[in-house]
Order: sequence, then structure tokens, then C-alpha cells
Amino acid sequence: MTKDIDHWFETSVAQLSDPQNQRVWSIIVSLFGDMAQAEGDQISGAALTRIITPMGIKPEAIRVALHRLRKDGWIESERSGRASVHFLTQYGRSQSAAVTPRIYDRAPRIAQDWHLLIADDAAGQAVLDDLLLLPNYITVNRNTALGHGTMPGSLEDLLAIGASDFAVPDWLKARIFPGDLTAACGSLLQELKAAGLPPAQPDALQIAALRTLVVHRWRRVVLRHPDLPESFHPASWPGTACRDRVFALLDALPRPDAGTLNSAWDGS
Amino acid sequence: MTKDIDHWFETSVAQLSDPQNQRVWSIIVSLFGDMAQAEGDQISGAALTRIITPMGIKPEAIRVALHRLRKDGWIESERSGRASVHFLTQYGRSQSAAVTPRIYDRAPRIAQDWHLLIADDAAGQAVLDDLLLLPNYITVNRNTALGHGTMPGSLEDLLAIGASDFAVPDWLKARIFPGDLTAACGSLLQELKAAGLPPAQPDALQIAALRTLVVHRWRRVVLRHPDLPESFHPASWPGTACRDRVFALLDALPRPDAGTLNSAWDGS
Repeated sequence: MTKDIDHWFETSVAQLSDPQNQRVWSIIVSLFGDMAQAEGDQISGAALTRIITPMGIKPEAIRVALHRLRKDGWIESERSGRASVHFLTQYGRSQSAAVTPRIYDRAPRIAQDWHLLIADDAAGQAVLDDLLLLPNYITVNRNTALGHGTMPGSLEDLLAIGASDFAVPDWLKARIFPGDLTAACGSLLQELKAAGLPPAQPDALQIAALRTLVVHRWRRVVLRHPDLPESFHPASWPGTACRDRVFALLDALPRPDAGTLNSAWDGS
Repeated sequence: MTKDIDHWFETSVAQLSDPQNQRVWSIIVSLFGDMAQAEGDQISGAALTRIITPMGIKPEAIRVALHRLRKDGWIESERSGRASVHFLTQYGRSQSAAVTPRIYDRAPRIAQDWHLLIADDAAGQAVLDDLLLLPNYITVNRNTALGHGTMPGSLEDLLAIGASDFAVPDWLKARIFPGDLTAACGSLLQELKAAGLPPAQPDALQIAALRTLVVHRWRRVVLRHPDLPESFHPASWPGTACRDRVFALLDALPRPDAGTLNSAWDGS
């Protein structure tokens, strides 16, 4: 049984890892966001190494990434006797909290209240460019933004129009769901299918490694596109199937808390 | 009494005429459209002259305009003994019939079913340019058309979106209701106010002259803008007040039929 689950773990981690293409600091951000986001949560250096090295990442690379995350204000590290512990800063926690709802939303509510903001060829362009920095606006073309939520009231230079019943051309689908995003989502789906569900309960560190990988890969898909009505999806968009697989596997790998992870290591 | 009405007629015709700026062929088109649009209707050359010369237009100018209208296929002329008669061709009748509903619509029903068609900066521009030739589309900007009626079903390259709740910026109001249109509408309104209503019933030829002038002036306002929700009107748009005055005066000048006009002249 232990052999079965170890084999499944190794195969699945190999499937879901992408050694050529994974930034270690970003994986660490995914790990803390998933399992040590609360104030007071901390992960020991030893546990971190045990969770991440199975992905084909060397301890030196972890040290370099932690150095960078400290420099950028995401993480603080403390010594505790001979061991070290790491935890998210206030800034790191707030960055993490900002995207958590979208990453873990298993049935996104598609907004119903859409509107368009349209600039003239000359007037309003600057206002529009500012608006497109907001999370609830997407670019339709140079003059046009599609947004949801309440229509802004004081946009003198923009034509604002309530929008419904979308018939979406291929160029817009491709702009919102570009080919590399569709490819990233499609290969995650394939790898999740290949991994399947665990034949038995993995140990806490195995769970942590797999959860980190799944959350990391999904984060890079889900945060790159807005939740839009299905009529905006390219025919080949695998997002819905992929999301289902992501949550099926996460549900089979119940989140260990940070304390368990640290003691799993201490005690092994 | 006759003196009163003759005075009112002369004053009002002078008010509503615009000798510097009226194309005689266009006035003749307005006249036929109002009083001799049906197949078989004809206006004698003598009646035509009596109706139009009070506007400050010389008989030679009428002859030149009739020549042009014959050349363009709008009108045919026949001799009848020593007199001539003129009538709309099939083409002239159909052109006239095409705009009659809008000219005489005293309470336009504002469409409720609006949609936007949006081209990419590159794709779909040619389709959009073609669509903008249709009467139910107006230009928002280089990439965007606003239309009413059923949303087209097969516009591969265009984003089609149902539209409601318009907040319209000044640049779009000014594009749809340009300054010279607002000015033309405003001066027609002032002149209709100055003319007021007839103090007694004018004779058939007087009625014909006044109806021709009112329809002619109104035609050049109403056909130059689409019927849009009030939120699209510039604050100064005098269209609704102008339309009310147009129909108040037309109602006070019951349309004579072509036969009455011709015999009014024969019998005088």
C-alpha cells in the first residue's frame, strides 16, 4: 500500500512538474498561499525543502528563491535554534489574499451586469486606458472596454452602454483566451487526467507537494483570464473541464496545516 | 377676411422661404411627395408655377429644375393641348414612398432593441463599413456601429452585443446631431412660431405652397438624423418642439388633391 501510494506520488509529481519552466519563487508563493497564508503560519526550511525537492528543484534554487522573496518583501525568515522558519509578510499575505477567492472558486458566478465603455477615435482614450487597469475591465479593441458591475456614472468622454446577448467573433475569443493560455490549460488537464486520484492517502508532505503543484499550475491559468459567459470561450477552451479536475484532486488531498507539515518533518 | 389671409400667406411664405439656399428641384420633389405621390396623380405646369413662384423662385428656374428631374428619371412631362402636365415616374414614386413614413411620422416610436457591432482594429472593418450604409445603423466611431432591430446572425468578424441604458458623451451627440442640423431645425422652429396658424382657410394653391415649404424644410431636418432615445439628444436639440409645430401647421392646411390644384388654376 505504501509502495502503491509512493509510486503514484512520484509519477504524479513528475507529470505535474515542469522543471524547464517553473520559477521557484512562484512555486513558493503558491505553497504559502495554499497552506500558510494566515498570520502566524510558518513553514520550516526543512519542510519546505522536503515539499519542493521532489519537483526536481535543488535546495540551492530554493535558497536563491527565498532570498529573492525576502528582498521583494513577500517573505520573512527567522532562525529558531539550528533550524530556520519562513512566513509571509503582511504584504505577502495581502497579495496572496487578493487572488485566493478566484483561485479557489470552484463554480465562478458569471457576472450578468455587463457594460461597454467606448471612446471616440480621439476623445476619452486616456480615461479608457486608466479603466483598463481595473480588474473588472477587459480590452475589446483600442476604443472599447467591456466591464461588469455598476456602470460608472461620471465618464464624460466615454459612451457607456449596458450590454447583453453577446455574439463573439474569433478575434476577440483569441484576444481573451490566447493560444498559449489555452495550451497551458489543456496540458494541465491532460496531466491531471493522467494522474487520476490517489489510490490511498498520501502523507502530509506528499500532499503538500501535490497541492502546491496543482495550485501553482492552476493559478497560472485561472488568473490569466476573466470569468466570462460561455459565448466568449473559444470552441477548444478546456477551462471548465480543467477546473473540475483541479478541485477533484485537491478534494482528495485534504489541506494539511502548517504545524502538521513542520512536525511531519521533525518527526520523520 | 381675404385680405387678412393673403397677408398672412405672404408673410408666412416669406418667413419659410430661403431664396439663397433652396434647390428648386428639391422643392418640386417635396411638392410631388406631399400632394401627387400616387400613380396617376399629375400637376399642371401652370399650377406648379403658381405654387412655387410665391417662394421667390422664377419660372425659368422651375423649367430648369423640371428638366433636371426628367433627366434624373424622377419626373415625366406630357403636353396636353397648349398646357403641360408633370408626374412622378415609377422610380420617383418609389423614392418618395421610401421616405414618406419618416417625414410624416408625428410620434416616432423610438426603437427599444438596440445592438452594437464592433470591429477589431483590423478585422471586420469592411463588413462594418457595408453595414453603415443600411438605414438602421449609425456610426459611433471608426470601429463601432449602433443599430436597432434584430441582431444580425452571421457576422463572423464583428462582436455583436445587445445594448441598453445609454450614457452618451457630447462627442457622440455632436456627431449624430451636428451643429448645422441643430441650427436648421432651430431656425425652422422659430419661423413656424413666427408664422403661427392661418387666421382663416387659405385657398388650395396657397395651401399647396405652404405645405410644400413646410414639408421641404422638415424633410431636410428629419431625414438627417435617426430616431434615437432622448439620452442621445444634445441639450439644445429643438427637434421635438419643431415636429410639433410642423404637424400643427400641416393639420391647419388640409392637403388638397392634385385634381383640385389643377382646376383651381384652370378656374381662376
